[in-house]
Amino acid sequence: MNAVDMISKKQAGKAHTLSEIEHFIQGYTRGDVLDAEMSAWLMAVYFKGMNDEEIIALLKAMINSGKQMNFQRLPNFVADKHSTGGVGDKVSIILGPLMASVGLAIPMISGRSLGHTGGTLDKLESIPGYRTDLPLRHFRQIVEEVGISMIGQTNKICPADKKMYALRDATSTIHSIPLIVSSIMSKKIAEGIQGLVIDLKVGAGAFMHDMEEANELAEKLKMAGEYFGVSTNIIFTNMDQPLGEYAGLWCEIKECIQALQGKGSDDLMDVTYTLGNSLLLQSKIAKDKEEAENIQRRHLSNGSAYKKFVEMVKAHGGDPSFIENPDMYKKPRYVGELTANHDGYIVSMDTFQIGLSVNDLTILHHHGKRNKDNSGGIRFHKKIGEQVKKGQVIATCFGNEKSRVNRIKSKLTKTIKIGETPPPPLVLFL
Amino acid sequence: MNAVDMISKKQAGKAHTLSEIEHFIQGYTRGDVLDAEMSAWLMAVYFKGMNDEEIIALLKAMINSGKQMNFQRLPNFVADKHSTGGVGDKVSIILGPLMASVGLAIPMISGRSLGHTGGTLDKLESIPGYRTDLPLRHFRQIVEEVGISMIGQTNKICPADKKMYALRDATSTIHSIPLIVSSIMSKKIAEGIQGLVIDLKVGAGAFMHDMEEANELAEKLKMAGEYFGVSTNIIFTNMDQPLGEYAGLWCEIKECIQALQGKGSDDLMDVTYTLGNSLLLQSKIAKDKEEAENIQRRHLSNGSAYKKFVEMVKAHGGDPSFIENPDMYKKPRYVGELTANHDGYIVSMDTFQIGLSVNDLTILHHHGKRNKDNSGGIRFHKKIGEQVKKGQVIATCFGNEKSRVNRIKSKLTKTIKIGETPPPPLVLFL
Repeated sequence: MNAVDMISKKQAGKAHTLSEIEHFIQGYTRGDVLDAEMSAWLMAVYFKGMNDEEIIALLKAMINSGKQMNFQRLPNFVADKHSTGGVGDKVSIILGPLMASVGLAIPMISGRSLGHTGGTLDKLESIPGYRTDLPLRHFRQIVEEVGISMIGQTNKICPADKKMYALRDATSTIHSIPLIVSSIMSKKIAEGIQGLVIDLKVGAGAFMHDMEEANELAEKLKMAGEYFGVSTNIIFTNMDQPLGEYAGLWCEIKECIQALQGKGSDDLMDVTYTLGNSLLLQSKIAKDKEEAENIQRRHLSNGSAYKKFVEMVKAHGGDPSFIENPDMYKKPRYVGELTANHDGYIVSMDTFQIGLSVNDLTILHHHGKRNKDNSGGIRFHKKIGEQVKKGQVIATCFGNEKSRVNRIKSKLTKTIKIGETPPPPLVLFL
Repeated sequence: MNAVDMISKKQAGKAHTLSEIEHFIQGYTRGDVLDAEMSAWLMAVYFKGMNDEEIIALLKAMINSGKQMNFQRLPNFVADKHSTGGVGDKVSIILGPLMASVGLAIPMISGRSLGHTGGTLDKLESIPGYRTDLPLRHFRQIVEEVGISMIGQTNKICPADKKMYALRDATSTIHSIPLIVSSIMSKKIAEGIQGLVIDLKVGAGAFMHDMEEANELAEKLKMAGEYFGVSTNIIFTNMDQPLGEYAGLWCEIKECIQALQGKGSDDLMDVTYTLGNSLLLQSKIAKDKEEAENIQRRHLSNGSAYKKFVEMVKAHGGDPSFIENPDMYKKPRYVGELTANHDGYIVSMDTFQIGLSVNDLTILHHHGKRNKDNSGGIRFHKKIGEQVKKGQVIATCFGNEKSRVNRIKSKLTKTIKIGETPPPPLVLFL
């Protein structure tokens, strides 16, 4: 079946066969199917959807477009964590080393900052020397020796997905459940994992805005994971405000170091523990949630999670002296303070706009080139529900470009609302 | 508004502003908007449609992407005819010279064979020497001096449409009323015409399969024509069987020559007269249908329509000796005869498959190059409703490639059905 027939079949709402999808994705990976053809098909999928068999076929085709890892010779339970993307979401950088310290093997392939969401990869690269572009051979070796490696997407794993994702981003076809499922799960399954926990963000600062859609996505993610024999748990967390105290690049790494030393903020640690509990139950290392959380707290307080993080940083070429002494890092040159203009309570934060602001401060596009300001970010001194006094600092933004810092500072005033009375308490788990 | 925002706006079913559409189409014509972006947008339009203001904006943008002709200094009524595409539909080649002989000026830009439909351009090019790729300056001069010129689409007129049409063909987005309307009408309006008659084909061998959709298309075509001050009439004709006796390239030209000499078949002449009546009423040359049809019959019987055709052929570099003596033309080397396998009546013809067969016989694709077999075509000895005897020839197919002729011959047996009893009479005008 040629490309135009594929498009018109999906346009008519019909289901594709396994071999149609395989052929089409192979053709696209090779370059025989053009971007224009693929984008029309993606838009038809956006409107007409896909059934479970089609999602599995798409997943298989994406996985088969590249290499598949295999950690069967390791005695450890091999697992990964995925987040659908949020603001200030640094859980991977804490949870990964924590799980590795408990004895899991974590081969984690992460993404970049995109749209309003932060990227684990961009955060890790703010560590001087840290390389995210290691070859797969090296990645595997670190997982085997250290227990965890965090790298960026490579052309070797699911190249079809890499090409399709860039196209979806440019053609407004990101927001389609079958396409989201196949994109997330193909890379995870290709990692050769046995267990997976997904942090499905819901709310103003997430891609999913309502629970109905989130539930549908969760169901399909679980279906896909189970088809390929990967234990899959989905945790729904609220993204109506940024997670933790910082959103940015190096400032989030600093917050992770503190969290790995047992000094993480409550919301950040709650999400970390909940996701970790799932993995420890999947791996049968813990028999119940209470035991799982105790194990995690112990590995944070006894320094083994932190030690694992330092090991991982070293294995990736990162300079551990910056981890041991974060204040060595060059400070941002410009700081803007946002103060409360009247007494009251923080009632809401426009997390979508805040996320855009964070990426605006940190990911700089100059003449089509992507540069980064590692020092950039925002600190949230007050979160939703907290009381503030007139003149009190509620947020700080910082970075090395004066005009950006000023622009973001004035934009932020519109994103954080102060009310007279306390808002209803924010529920973190949905 | 950038491309991805245009796409997501249409995806959400919202209406674009005039300036958004202008900017987008300009960007696409220049190459700043990529094919992949345009095809995603086209698919979103396919699913979400466009309101009248958007259709007009798209039309304007397409017209403004190239040159606009202007025949205001001519005293003649300037008009054109368009067909939405059929099988054996050679009406343009008869009606154009006929209308010019009556005194209308006809600047006609025609299309090529596509899908299952024949192309006026490909048929004209079967006349030895006939050039369809004349510069606009030359086209205008022929219209002014002869009264009619028939050329192919040029990069000078609506280049945006040319680029978009090729993309729509490749991405299954042809079948969208706003896109059909803007594509047809932009080119016609850019010709600088005052009147237009559209033969809207309905049925198995047409792009439009039901009257509801055809009515909606007609309404939008009329709306668009009237917005730009072009008198627009729509005639609905049946495409449940090929029009006339032949479908192909030179064989259709031969049939046109006979028709221009007053020897056309009934169905072919009925369509020609009906379309001609509209133009003669629009131009106020005739005061009613009866007078209009009398004028047409007179111009056929007194040879002036035929003379006009010969003049046009000459002006385009064509060799008039082949028109004067069609039997000079090289005969097809292979002929396949399809005979009735039992007594009865022709009850149906799969006009879509017949159209594909005609193009298969005439438009040859060799290693990505488009070649033509001008001698190729099909003759319909019997049409729907006619009685046949076992063994009688009901159709002949011919061409210069033996394997193709044989293949099409065996394919044809499945497309023409013979029943025991006569079918209900076929209505030509719907």
